[in-house]
Amino acid sequence: MLSHAHRVVIVGGGFGGLEAVSGLAGLRAEITLIDQRNYHLFQPLLYQVATASLSTSEIAWPIRNLVRGRSEVSTLLATVTGIDASARQVILSDGERVGYDTLVLATGAQHTYFGHDDWEGIAPGLKTLEDATTIRRRILLAFERAERAVDPGRQAANLTFVIVGAGPTGVELAGTIAELARSTLAPDFRRIDTRTARVILVEAGPRILPGFAEDLSAYAHKALEALGVEVVLERAVTNCTADGVTFADTFLPTRTIIWAAGVKASAAAAWLGVTADRAGRILVEPDLTVPGYPEIFAIGDTVAITGPTGDQVPGIAPAAKQEGAYVAKTIGRRLRGKPAPPPFRYCHQGSLATIGKRLAVIDFGRVRLRGSLAWWIWGFAHIYFLIGLKSRLSVALSWLWIHLRDQRGSRLITQGEVPTDKISPDLHSTAR
Amino acid sequence: MLSHAHRVVIVGGGFGGLEAVSGLAGLRAEITLIDQRNYHLFQPLLYQVATASLSTSEIAWPIRNLVRGRSEVSTLLATVTGIDASARQVILSDGERVGYDTLVLATGAQHTYFGHDDWEGIAPGLKTLEDATTIRRRILLAFERAERAVDPGRQAANLTFVIVGAGPTGVELAGTIAELARSTLAPDFRRIDTRTARVILVEAGPRILPGFAEDLSAYAHKALEALGVEVVLERAVTNCTADGVTFADTFLPTRTIIWAAGVKASAAAAWLGVTADRAGRILVEPDLTVPGYPEIFAIGDTVAITGPTGDQVPGIAPAAKQEGAYVAKTIGRRLRGKPAPPPFRYCHQGSLATIGKRLAVIDFGRVRLRGSLAWWIWGFAHIYFLIGLKSRLSVALSWLWIHLRDQRGSRLITQGEVPTDKISPDLHSTAR
Repeated sequence: MLSHAHRVVIVGGGFGGLEAVSGLAGLRAEITLIDQRNYHLFQPLLYQVATASLSTSEIAWPIRNLVRGRSEVSTLLATVTGIDASARQVILSDGERVGYDTLVLATGAQHTYFGHDDWEGIAPGLKTLEDATTIRRRILLAFERAERAVDPGRQAANLTFVIVGAGPTGVELAGTIAELARSTLAPDFRRIDTRTARVILVEAGPRILPGFAEDLSAYAHKALEALGVEVVLERAVTNCTADGVTFADTFLPTRTIIWAAGVKASAAAAWLGVTADRAGRILVEPDLTVPGYPEIFAIGDTVAITGPTGDQVPGIAPAAKQEGAYVAKTIGRRLRGKPAPPPFRYCHQGSLATIGKRLAVIDFGRVRLRGSLAWWIWGFAHIYFLIGLKSRLSVALSWLWIHLRDQRGSRLITQGEVPTDKISPDLHSTAR
Repeated sequence: MLSHAHRVVIVGGGFGGLEAVSGLAGLRAEITLIDQRNYHLFQPLLYQVATASLSTSEIAWPIRNLVRGRSEVSTLLATVTGIDASARQVILSDGERVGYDTLVLATGAQHTYFGHDDWEGIAPGLKTLEDATTIRRRILLAFERAERAVDPGRQAANLTFVIVGAGPTGVELAGTIAELARSTLAPDFRRIDTRTARVILVEAGPRILPGFAEDLSAYAHKALEALGVEVVLERAVTNCTADGVTFADTFLPTRTIIWAAGVKASAAAAWLGVTADRAGRILVEPDLTVPGYPEIFAIGDTVAITGPTGDQVPGIAPAAKQEGAYVAKTIGRRLRGKPAPPPFRYCHQGSLATIGKRLAVIDFGRVRLRGSLAWWIWGFAHIYFLIGLKSRLSVALSWLWIHLRDQRGSRLITQGEVPTDKISPDLHSTAR
């Protein structure tokens, strides 16, 4: 009797999951990659879709296509709703079960409203392509509503953009929206001066970009202000409504709130009933297995693990990729009957954030860069990490046009209704 | 007392409306361009978005941006719901009124189900960007469902694609879907052989491409069949359900029906209470004014008018552009106190349709082309007519990849749910 091939099921086609698939190449294993989307998303550039700089297809690739050359890899477009660990089966939303010998959970994270889930409809976060097109539509519609508004208060509220949370995503959104208003959109409107728009970045902590060295935070702060962004520190948002946002004792009328304040892990810990931290991340063993389940690995934003410096490994693409590669290596050694590799060791390659279209900060640890050189490094690094020559050429072309002509090619308001600011002033606050 | 500038209101930013705006340049007129979308859409390539060949932003441009250099032109993102012709005002959906001295109606057409409006949710047509992404999602989801289907009947139904109507859009959709199934998608799936998919083009009339010369129709028919498309002639569709389509006495199980069978004009005739033909098109005067309203012009798909050969002017972009230019000229002459130009005379420049990615037919009247030379002419003509160098480069790049690598870059399933073919087999039939 022939033994069946070892079945590896990987849940999640993000950076970690795909890296694990890559690392398993050449093994005698039957791999099933399950994702609830049909595409892999390059999340570091998602804010550029939200701000009309790139189009959706420039930063997303069909997962099937990425693994087309690997006949042992099957792709399943499906939603996982649970795990039957005793039967070693993944349970899908339609009741179907997929058996595994080894399971890799790379299910990522989503934004969290710290108990205020009702804010989600008002203040969308930025995790999916749909989030990005929703934010893009809201930003563009706010300018359209302002152009048509008769009442000065309504006009001002429509020209006020609030970004909550000053990590890299919040900083990048604030800088780009400021540039849209100050420069790209200005010649296109007749009744309003888009340059008068207010872009406000609200952060509960004492400085922006808390993951970066202090001098880079200070530089980014000044650079954002030079772009026209108002930075508000040490103010937690206490309420979000269709009319505006409250932080500390201030109520600010606005029609556009974007949430970049916090993430929580997917439900993977709950599927297994294992211990998680406050953000829902599984507290994995040093070899990235789930405690009590040596055949189940968890990687990326799904897990909490500390790096060699004692700090938490950050929820960024390079960390997920390193974990994916480590897990693939471990699985390979197990299948070949070799001893386990030493515990996972995270190597921090640096933190990057852009401030508008010409400046960036890069924190390599000992080496810190800021300004336009950092921007060029950021740009080349991101083009390099895109998948395929076509995407690289396409994104390079889009960026060239943004820089030379100040034209952002994806200013499309799709999937929504026509705006009005007269009869039903906030028809769109929850529209998708 | 200064006389106010002549107010021209143009409703619709399609080919006709934009051409009218262009033609009015240099006049002492205050122009307002109203559209319910914020973008101009290059409809001749919309089928390529529906078949994952191009992305939405490659064929759509923000209207505001197109007229940014014309300070006398205001753009209004709004839906027109009526006209108060005695007060010379356009009425918007929120009750606002926009006064005009001259009005140009370029409101286009939409698809019609000949009294079966309930088919719309089942058999989407292809007129808007949202239609295109809906069709794209349905096509891609059908393959995903087939990959997961256990029951052979369901698998076959998911691998059956029916296109109703064999005008250029139907032919182009059928050819491209066949190529997707035969070639692009084949290496990506494991359980199904996408090359077994059936693509069926159903036409009520006696031949495909009825607007073309008979020999070109016959050539296109054979070329489609060589691509694997089944062409069914002289069969009218009598029913569409979530389970399949009925034509003549045949019921064909399918999950994907695309409607390319008929269009009707927008409601412009009803707004004015004027005579329209069966398709709702205004029967305009020879100078393109609406009978009884010398200050109101109607152009493009909104109108029915005969050309110099006695045939109806076709509902294609060049016709709308010629009409827009003619109307702008007439308005210019009126404002300068000059006599009216001679009646509008349509000049037919040719009919084009592609069959897959390498062949096309072009009917210039006396000269008729077919095959790959026709395809090259079609390709260059369409790139030439795109707006801006960036779009031209971007579309050329996308086409290059389709031709050299058989990669279609926009295979994204967005704005929908995850498919399943087990518990709730047709969750997606009406999802948007």
